[in-house]
Amino acid sequence: MITIPTLDDIRDAAEKIKPYIHKTPVMTCQSINRMAGAEIFFKCENLQKVGAFKIRGASNAVFSLTEQQCQKGVATHSSGNHAAALALAARLRNIEAVIVMPKTAPLVKKEAVKRSGAKIVLSEPTQKDREKTLEQVAGEKGMTIIHSYDNPKVIAGQGTSALELLSQAPNLDIVIAPVSGGGLLSGTSIAVKGVSPETQVWGAEPEAANDAYLSLKSGKLVRCDNPQTIADGLRMSLSERTFSIIRKNVTDIITVNEEEIISSMRLVWERMKIIIEPSSAVPVAAVLKNKKNFSGKRIGIIISGGNVDLDRLPWMKQNS
Amino acid sequence: MITIPTLDDIRDAAEKIKPYIHKTPVMTCQSINRMAGAEIFFKCENLQKVGAFKIRGASNAVFSLTEQQCQKGVATHSSGNHAAALALAARLRNIEAVIVMPKTAPLVKKEAVKRSGAKIVLSEPTQKDREKTLEQVAGEKGMTIIHSYDNPKVIAGQGTSALELLSQAPNLDIVIAPVSGGGLLSGTSIAVKGVSPETQVWGAEPEAANDAYLSLKSGKLVRCDNPQTIADGLRMSLSERTFSIIRKNVTDIITVNEEEIISSMRLVWERMKIIIEPSSAVPVAAVLKNKKNFSGKRIGIIISGGNVDLDRLPWMKQNS
Repeated sequence: MITIPTLDDIRDAAEKIKPYIHKTPVMTCQSINRMAGAEIFFKCENLQKVGAFKIRGASNAVFSLTEQQCQKGVATHSSGNHAAALALAARLRNIEAVIVMPKTAPLVKKEAVKRSGAKIVLSEPTQKDREKTLEQVAGEKGMTIIHSYDNPKVIAGQGTSALELLSQAPNLDIVIAPVSGGGLLSGTSIAVKGVSPETQVWGAEPEAANDAYLSLKSGKLVRCDNPQTIADGLRMSLSERTFSIIRKNVTDIITVNEEEIISSMRLVWERMKIIIEPSSAVPVAAVLKNKKNFSGKRIGIIISGGNVDLDRLPWMKQNS
Repeated sequence: MITIPTLDDIRDAAEKIKPYIHKTPVMTCQSINRMAGAEIFFKCENLQKVGAFKIRGASNAVFSLTEQQCQKGVATHSSGNHAAALALAARLRNIEAVIVMPKTAPLVKKEAVKRSGAKIVLSEPTQKDREKTLEQVAGEKGMTIIHSYDNPKVIAGQGTSALELLSQAPNLDIVIAPVSGGGLLSGTSIAVKGVSPETQVWGAEPEAANDAYLSLKSGKLVRCDNPQTIADGLRMSLSERTFSIIRKNVTDIITVNEEEIISSMRLVWERMKIIIEPSSAVPVAAVLKNKKNFSGKRIGIIISGGNVDLDRLPWMKQNS
């Protein structure tokens, strides 16, 4: 048995989290439209609280806890944005939070977690060690583990971004989101297929972390352990739950290489004057690369976040 | 005789340029509000066309030309944003534009001008050589010179940003804008004093280019030639026209040092996820530094632009 959220769950989540999140703007950019030969609507979750869509799922999960669960607190492991999101959601509900973070997480993401008052426990960067450390820590205190994507409340929360997008930019032909563990893409696909069944949902993934692409092609769940990509938010693998949702709803997944990610990230910074993290550049690169599928279309892109270590920008690497 | 625009001129400009510009959003940031102890409304001209407020003044000037003037084209000298703005405005009216740029202008600004199809002529970075080169170039072809700030149409256009701000964020106690040649601050002050006389208007200026501060203190026009500041948009000096407007309308001018500019710029990037150029960080630094004057107030800040050379970020200098 796997619990899968429905459009109603996403609508309930939207009501529940409304006081705690921003309704983020949808931006457009004529020069990028010209390059893509399409009309792109950027749903700016980089301008969301904690700088990422993750506060949507985390706050839906935390504000769905029973009073008894609240007394023990919450815990998770996360490479960054879910960490900061859960820390903030816990603070908003005035409960304790412990975050297991890989040693390799960007400084800016560790600081965001600390600012929210959560406790950080460091682990090795492998998915295995992150999970083991989390189970230890949470087990000791009886804390509720809020998984960053393999959780129906989290998935429902992440879907609220697409729900907003569909009302802000109606009649989209395609919605495209980055895919890591699949929480955002799953929630997005349920929202889009529920509200506008004729709108296609696509995923975008780094070539270097292409587990979702491989899973969709082969029809069975493939995992990548500790993949190396500049898109530090996209290093997780699908779960059975997110895979089953994505298989059902998603037309296809496009992979892009590191160079395409970096140049798309820089393009958005330069032309739109907004800060997006490498993970958010992945669907932008996918649209620019696949004119065959996207030309002439009205396309919504979920810009997932804007948390970047400003001392280590990817285009600086060559020079330092 | 000096022609000074009125509130009506600014309202006329707003109508005239409406088809060619964005109505830019006003953003807020809780964590910066906490740091400042004030409620700040950021008027995001970095999200404006050409990435700066300058398109407002340039398009008002260009669309006010006679047909006869249009046949000869327009010319200007500018360190960057006015250059790109005039180039775009000229393209929109389908007339020729020549831009005299200092050799030292950031690459990103030169490229923006080229993208708009204007012709670039390079000069030495001194104000004197820039003016001399411009007069030569424009004189040969009989082009209309559109000065970047000492022009009533330009000043009226720049004032339209504050006009929008006042309707987007009513009941402001203070509006603060950066000051270079004073076009933005003049236009802003006329709009604010016209619409809401009790609202104060302040200027913010780099210590290293403090001609407006010195002019206001001494009561007579002081010039800085080729000042060295990271705020590359704020290196010009007031004209008689802008000085007379600022003297009348502006409460005071705050100066900030280079370190304060850089740290405020980085703060906005990190917390708000928007790209602002060093010049735009100057009023932010001024508010953070002067709690005495600004604490508890509702403050509008004109974020003047977002054109930054992403290969040369100020906080990178120490490392390279």
